[in-house]
Order: sequence, then structure tokens, then C-alpha cells
Amino acid sequence: MDRLGDLHDLVAALPDGVVLTDPDRIEGYRHDYTRDPTTGTPLAVVRPEDAAQVQVAVRWAAAHRVPVVPRGAGTGLSGGSSALDGALTLSLDRMRAVEVDPDCQVAVAEPGAFNAEVKAAAAEHGLWYPPDPSSFEICSIGGNVATNAGGLCCVKYGVTTDYVLGLDVVLADGSLVTLGGPRIKDVAGLSLLKLFVGSEGTLGVITRVILRLVPGQGRPSTMVASFPTVEAAARAVVGVRRRLRPSMMELMDRASINAVEDHRPMGLDRDAGALLLAQSDAPGDVRDAEIATLRTVCEQEGAADVFSTDDPDEGEMFVQARRIAIPAIETRGALLLEDVGAPIPLLPDLLRAIAAIAAEHEVEIPVIAHAGDGNTHPIVVYDPTDAASEKRARLAFDAVMQAAIALGGTITGEHGVGRAKKAALPDQLGPEVMALNRRVKDALDPDGILNPGAVL
Amino acid sequence: MDRLGDLHDLVAALPDGVVLTDPDRIEGYRHDYTRDPTTGTPLAVVRPEDAAQVQVAVRWAAAHRVPVVPRGAGTGLSGGSSALDGALTLSLDRMRAVEVDPDCQVAVAEPGAFNAEVKAAAAEHGLWYPPDPSSFEICSIGGNVATNAGGLCCVKYGVTTDYVLGLDVVLADGSLVTLGGPRIKDVAGLSLLKLFVGSEGTLGVITRVILRLVPGQGRPSTMVASFPTVEAAARAVVGVRRRLRPSMMELMDRASINAVEDHRPMGLDRDAGALLLAQSDAPGDVRDAEIATLRTVCEQEGAADVFSTDDPDEGEMFVQARRIAIPAIETRGALLLEDVGAPIPLLPDLLRAIAAIAAEHEVEIPVIAHAGDGNTHPIVVYDPTDAASEKRARLAFDAVMQAAIALGGTITGEHGVGRAKKAALPDQLGPEVMALNRRVKDALDPDGILNPGAVL
Ligand SMILES: Cc1cc2nc3c(=O)[nH]c(=O)nc-3n(C[C@H](O)[C@H](O)[C@H](O)COP(=O)(O)OP(=O)(O)OC[C@H]3O[C@@H](n4cnc5c(N)ncnc54)[C@H](O)[C@@H]3O)c2cc1C
Ligand SMILES: Cc1cc2nc3c(=O)[nH]c(=O)nc-3n(C[C@H](O)[C@H](O)[C@H](O)COP(=O)(O)OP(=O)(O)OC[C@H]3O[C@@H](n4cnc5c(N)ncnc54)[C@H](O)[C@@H]3O)c2cc1C
Repeated sequence: MDRLGDLHDLVAALPDGVVLTDPDRIEGYRHDYTRDPTTGTPLAVVRPEDAAQVQVAVRWAAAHRVPVVPRGAGTGLSGGSSALDGALTLSLDRMRAVEVDPDCQVAVAEPGAFNAEVKAAAAEHGLWYPPDPSSFEICSIGGNVATNAGGLCCVKYGVTTDYVLGLDVVLADGSLVTLGGPRIKDVAGLSLLKLFVGSEGTLGVITRVILRLVPGQGRPSTMVASFPTVEAAARAVVGVRRRLRPSMMELMDRASINAVEDHRPMGLDRDAGALLLAQSDAPGDVRDAEIATLRTVCEQEGAADVFSTDDPDEGEMFVQARRIAIPAIETRGALLLEDVGAPIPLLPDLLRAIAAIAAEHEVEIPVIAHAGDGNTHPIVVYDPTDAASEKRARLAFDAVMQAAIALGGTITGEHGVGRAKKAALPDQLGPEVMALNRRVKDALDPDGILNPGAVL
Repeated sequence: MDRLGDLHDLVAALPDGVVLTDPDRIEGYRHDYTRDPTTGTPLAVVRPEDAAQVQVAVRWAAAHRVPVVPRGAGTGLSGGSSALDGALTLSLDRMRAVEVDPDCQVAVAEPGAFNAEVKAAAAEHGLWYPPDPSSFEICSIGGNVATNAGGLCCVKYGVTTDYVLGLDVVLADGSLVTLGGPRIKDVAGLSLLKLFVGSEGTLGVITRVILRLVPGQGRPSTMVASFPTVEAAARAVVGVRRRLRPSMMELMDRASINAVEDHRPMGLDRDAGALLLAQSDAPGDVRDAEIATLRTVCEQEGAADVFSTDDPDEGEMFVQARRIAIPAIETRGALLLEDVGAPIPLLPDLLRAIAAIAAEHEVEIPVIAHAGDGNTHPIVVYDPTDAASEKRARLAFDAVMQAAIALGGTITGEHGVGRAKKAALPDQLGPEVMALNRRVKDALDPDGILNPGAVL
């Protein structure tokens, strides 16, 4: 195979150890968290140490028309960094430096740095990088930018794109551009910076990120309310949003509560139809007032049991329970992870539709949700050794996305389209917007080198 | 002229009164607020009543290769909506409906609605649309989106792009696309929504906007500090940002203070080197604590006089003084309005450089600034009847932009590049990023119909 022959040029052009071809070493870079069995095997995994080495790899790939799959930490939930047969997997996992400029209130990070590392570096200066995907301890900041990641505090503090001030990007031809910079406001030229956020590796390889930081978060108080039904909990979410902006508002349904309890017993109410977990980090008296409002709304919507605490450690235990939900549910079978969203007032309808789909297709679909944003994660569980179960699961997976679209919602609120949701994208966007996506993609990557088969 | 002949088709295709060709009626649509004497005269002004009529006009323009200049309320400060000879000026000033969905917490606005009208509609439901350019009572929301407008509260609440959830856009071929929707989180497909924000009419005509609203703002307290020098005030800004996020932090230098006092006496300290005007809208005790911190920092940086009030009306008087600064300075001559920004710690350097340029070129350059964002508006004043004065002013105008670029800043923080700053854009962005802008522009508007000569 002549590609393999040519690969020697790439190996020779880069320092020892940057290009991996040993199947054992490659194996760890094949899958993302979707663990799609159809994932391919790359020609090689390239692990650059700096942007110049990224450029060498992309230039080589462009010259040989070899596809490039950019990869952060591989925690993605849409197959966006899953390997392709014969492609390069370009892993940013060795580029991990983070520097904080406290006067500018920015962090300058290499893409492979973990979200948690950025947070920690900011905290050393009393500053805070808010976006907090549940995976924050294991996902990369470059992956966060590439997917426009959300998280738990985003209901009050916004998502990744709201914090990106600057990016270095290696384009499809191997050239490097610097977009934006450590300036809070800058409208010089088209908003290309924002275009690269959420582009899932299809427009360029992010090699440096400049992030806006804010003063450290206030100490949160926590409320946990258990509801007889998921819909009652969803109605409470709608009611809360009318009154205030909590700093967290998460939902877990009965199946996910029980999965967490089975996995690591935490004393959650196994009989609840759903739990709402909300926090307020408002200063002073306002925090108590917000918690009181949260309690009142939940009680009005029929919460059976409402608990609150101003002890951050006690609150953090509940947040932990929410964060381990995906790994906990994973112990029950193979998963198809959804990320559907709806306009807030239609959240109860979306949850009702999901329950109906689970019943119709006879599959278990536990639901966790960044409920305050209208963003839900129904998780279709199936038995990977049972073809019929898998088939039912795939039908249910598609039906949930169609239900979201029918409600004027989205097939993906934060995880990205990747490969897993690609088939449903045209149903949401329609032919004109699909064509517009394609035009921008073709303008920036005319040969289709970058992450082909993802998103579009 | 056969274009005029063809124009009859357009006139016939649209209801009476939509296409204006009478020179007297057209005159009012030629200039934006830059009042550039080189502004052209359009073939016609089209004032559609709905998106379908916008499509008719753009399709006609595309078929006849007639350029289209989209226009909101014409308050722009970069010549972005200035008329071009032989082009259509497409004015959105008749499309002004605003609807608020309080459960969704969104406003759905036609592009010609004024910013103040969106705020008012939101307020009827106890909700708030934060972005507040000083021109909020006279500028359109479509213009705000097209320029990614900033404002006074943006130091705490972010700029226009942070609030745009959905857009309807008529593309260069006359087709209409709907991007995003009333969903708080949505990452399905490329971030095209954000690409259109700040595109200054060069990528499409915005015909509908869906904006995120938030709960009503808290009652602000106000602090005003007068400093012996502009640089001392700028150092106080750096110091404040290290400690807290005020909901407003504006600066006026001596020349702008005196221009305001001459125009409408308000009792500002005419001898101050600079005033800092800051607000806190934090709830409860925190507001008082923030005002105390603001006072302390200003005193430490040498403020001669520090005043504060928790009476919102008294505070609003000072904000008014700041808002009328541009009209006040306008009475002194013709203006070249800058919008340069720098990383926050370099704000004192930027202001020092501006003073040096004013001295060197013997022109008056009053400065007002959204200082908390590092975004300044040096305003070069000249005598339009004196060619030498105008020449010095133009040299100073360019020198200020070069000074900002040299400090790693930007030539425009919020007003846009338009026609006025176009020449300096390549110096800021460099050839690669310019080429990338061009590639995206060409992909979306291959015939260059939309606002040619603006930005690129
Ligand atoms: C337990 C668990 C909880 C999670 N919770 C959340 C959550 O709350 N919110 C949320 O948003 N996500 C969540 N995720 C999903 C995932 O963590 C995020 O999508 C994350 O942003 C992916 O980062 P990564 O570094 O793992 O990227 P990868 O999985 O390696 O890649 C993701 C995508 O980004 C592209 N990419 C990665 N790095 C670059 C780069 N440097 N340049 C260009 N493209 C690049 C890839 O090509 C791919 O398309 C969760 C995942 C898990 C396993
Ligand atoms: C006294 C004064 C104070 C100001 N203060 C501020 C401030 O604090 N912050 C700030 O950001 N700006 C400020 N401005 C500038 C100006 O008000 C803003 O740029 C505003 O967003 C322009 O809106 P407009 O409706 O007047 O747009 P226009 O001037 O008509 O157009 C501006 C640009 O947007 C394009 N455009 C307009 N409508 C559309 C549409 N529907 N679709 C596509 N493109 C369109 C035009 O082609 C042009 O490029 C101020 C102006 C004045 C006169």
C-alpha cells in the first residue's frame, strides 16, 4: 500500500515517538466514548508536541489526500473522534500547557489540556473558568471548543463559545491562522472565531485556545427535590426559569437514580419519579432567597420531598451522583446516548414523548438532563449480544431525535453531531441549511481532508 | 440606463411605496452616522414589509448584478450602511414587530425594531434584553446583530452575539434560511448562526431575530470618580477588574467632559483629567460591598473626588451625560470616530498613545470608553472647511488604529469595520486571516452582491 510507503516521509519529518503505527499503541486511540463497533483503524496516530508538528502532519495528509481525524481526550459522545480506516488520527494529548494571565483574566491553553487543568490553573489566581461538562476531569479543552461543550453551570454561565476569545487553528492545507486574541470585544472581520467553535474537527485543528476567565464562583447552596413523575419535575423547571436563574438545574429520572444507587449507593430516593438538583451561587441573602423560591416552586408542582443545604460538601455529593450517572448506566448494557433539547416550555412534552418511545420499542431509556437549559440525555440501553434488542434500541434512538425535531427542538444540545447523529441532521436543518453548511465546509476544506464523515 | 429600465420590474413586483426612487425620499437613506462625504446615491431604496419582499428585492438584485446595501436605522459609526452609487439600499425600517414569549424567555423581533422597543417589550413581562449601545433608542436590532453591538452593561452581561438564539437570513441568491431557534443550547451543524452575527450585511440580510431574555436587572448603585489623569483612571479600571465585575464601567476624558458640559451643563468636574462612571447591580448587601470596593480602588489609584449614590435616577443622570457625549462632541466639528480596543492591562498604554498622537498631529481627540471592556472611542475632531485640519485628522485616525494593533488590540471593538476602517483591517488580521474571510465571503456571496466594499 503506497500510503504506508509515503508514511515513512511523515515519520522521518517528525521527532521519534510522534507517529505511532504499532497496532497495540494505536488501539487506545481508536474509539471515543460511544464505543461504536464500526469504528475503523487508522493508518497511524500522530501525537504532535506543538503546532508546527500539527502543520507537518496536516500538510502531509493534504498532499496525500489522507483524511485527518482530530482527537482530544476521546470522551466524545457522538463518535466525532472515532478512527477511520486509512486515516491519520491526530491526537492533541501531548499538547497540554496552560498559562493564566491574571491581569488580562485569560487562560492560554494548549488543546490537550484537560478542562479540569484549566479550572485549576485559573483557581490559583482566584479566577474561574465556568464551563463544566460532567466529564471535566477527563476531557480536553480543545475537544470542548470543537464541540462547544456545555455542562452543569451553563444554565447560568453559558457554554464554551461564550468564553472563547482566541484560537490558533491549523487549516486543511496545513497553514496556521490566529483568530481573535486576549481582547474582550473585537469585531474586526467576519466572526470566524465563533465559526470554529463547535466545528467538530471538520474545519481545522485547534492548536491553542485563549479563554476568558471570571472572578471565582460564590459558594453554592443546594436543593434536591423528588417528584412523583418526570413531567412534574419538568414543569417545576419551567416554573423556576420564570423566576430566577439558578447556577445548576439537573434532572434524573427513576431509572437513572436506580442505576446510580446500584453502582454506588448514595441514599437517593429510589421510588421518586424524578429528582431535580438545583444550586444557587448568588451572594449573601440572595442565595437563601433563591433556594426558598426553588423550594416553593417544587412544592407547588407536587414535589414529595424537598431537601436543601448550604454545606457545599453535602451539595457536592448530590452533584457527584449526577455526574456518575452515565458510567453507572453503562454497567447495565451497551448505550446509545442522546442529547436532545427542546424549548423550555416543551420540556414536559419531550420527556413524555421519550417515555412513550421507550414503551413502544420495549427498551429502557433512563433520562438525565441539564434540565434548566432544556437539554436532555435520554440513554437508550440495550444488550449488545442480542441483535433484536440492538435493533429496537436503534429505532428508539432515531425516534427520540425525531420527537425533538417535531417539538421544534434539536438533536444535539452539546455533544455534537459527530457520526452518531449525522443521519438525523438533515431532518432538523432542512436542505437549504444543509447546503449552507456544505458551502462553508467546502470553502475551508475543499478536498474534504478534515474529519470526513463527521457532521456532514 | 438599462438598470433603471429593469427597476420597473422590481417596482411592479412589490406593493406601492416599497421602492423609493424620488431623490428627496432617498436622501434620508443615504448616510449613516459617519456622514461620509463620499457616500453615493442609490438606484433606489427598497423598504420591504416582510421577508418575502426582501427575497423579491434580493432576487432581482442577484439577477441584475446590482449590489444591495442592507440598512437598519443608519446609526452605524463605520459607514457600513452608507449608500453606493447604482446599488439598492435595502432598508428594514418598516419591519418592526416584536413579540415576547415569557415562558421561552425569548423575544422574536423583526430587524427594524429598535433596541429600546425590544427592551420595552421584554420589560412588560418582567424580562430584560441586556445589550445597550448608547444609541439604543435610535438603532435597530437587525443593525445590532449585523454589527454584534456592545454597550454599557456589556462589561458584565456580554454583547449581542451572546443573546442571539435564532436568525432568519435572506442569502445572496434570495433564498431564505432559518438558523437556530428558541433553544438555549443547540450545536446541530456548523455555528452558522454566530457567523452571521457581526457580518455587517456582507453575508445576508437578517429578516428575523430570536433573542434570549433574562430576568429583570437589579436596581443599580452608581459611583463617579474623577482622576487627575486618564492613565490613573485606566489603572483603576485594571484594578477593579481584578476584583469584581461591575455592571458598567465607562470613562470620559477631560475633553469629552467639557464637550458635554458645553452642550448640556450637568455639573461634571471640568478640571478632572478623566471621570470613571461605574455601577453595581448586584443584589442586596453585595451591591454596597461592590460600590465600596470600586471607591477603594479608585482612591488607591489617586482619584481626587469619589461620589456614589444608590438613587437610580441620580445615577441615570451621569449615564445620560456619558450617552450624549458623541452628539455633544459633534457640535465641535466633523468627527472621525474610533472604536479601538486593547487587552485590559494595556488600556493605560493605549490611552497614552492616543494622547501622543493628538499632540503629534495637532488635533483634538476626546476619548470616551467602555473602559471595563478595554474598548475606547477616541473621537478625532476636525474642521471640515479646512483641508489641512482634515488631513491631519485622517493621519491621526489611522495612527490610532496602528497604535491599537501594535498593542495587540483591535481596530474595532463593537462598531464594525464598515467602510471607514477597511483599509486598516489587513494590518490587524494579516494576509492568511484576510484570505480566510474572503473564502467565506465568496462561498456565501459568490457574485459579491451584498454590501460590496464594506469590511473586505
Ligand atoms: C461521563 C461523561 C460526561 C459528559 N458530560 C458532558 C457534559 O456535561 N457536557 C458536554 O458538553 N459534554 C459532555 N460529555 C461529552 C464530552 O466529554 C465532550 O464532548 C468533550 O468536549 C469532548 O472532549 P474530548 O477532548 O474528549 O474530545 P474528543 O472526544 O476527542 O473529540 C470530540 C470532537 O472534537 C474534535 N476535536 C477534539 N480536539 C480537537 C482539536 N484540538 N481541534 C479540532 N477538533 C478537535 C474531534 O474531532 C471530535 O469531533 C461527557 C462525556 C462523558 C464520557
Ligand atoms: C450616539 C451613538 C452612540 C452609539 N453607541 C454605541 C454603543 O455603545 N455600542 C455599539 O456597539 N454601537 C454604538 N453605536 C453605533 C450603532 O448604533 C450600532 O452599530 C448599531 O448596531 C447600528 O444599528 P443600525 O440599525 O443603526 O444599523 P445601520 O447603521 O443601518 O447598519 C449598520 C451595519 O449593519 C448592517 N445591517 C443593518 N441592518 C441589517 C440587516 N437587517 N441585515 C443585514 N445587515 C444589516 C448594515 O449593512 C451596516 O453594515 C452608537 C451610535 C451612535 C450614533
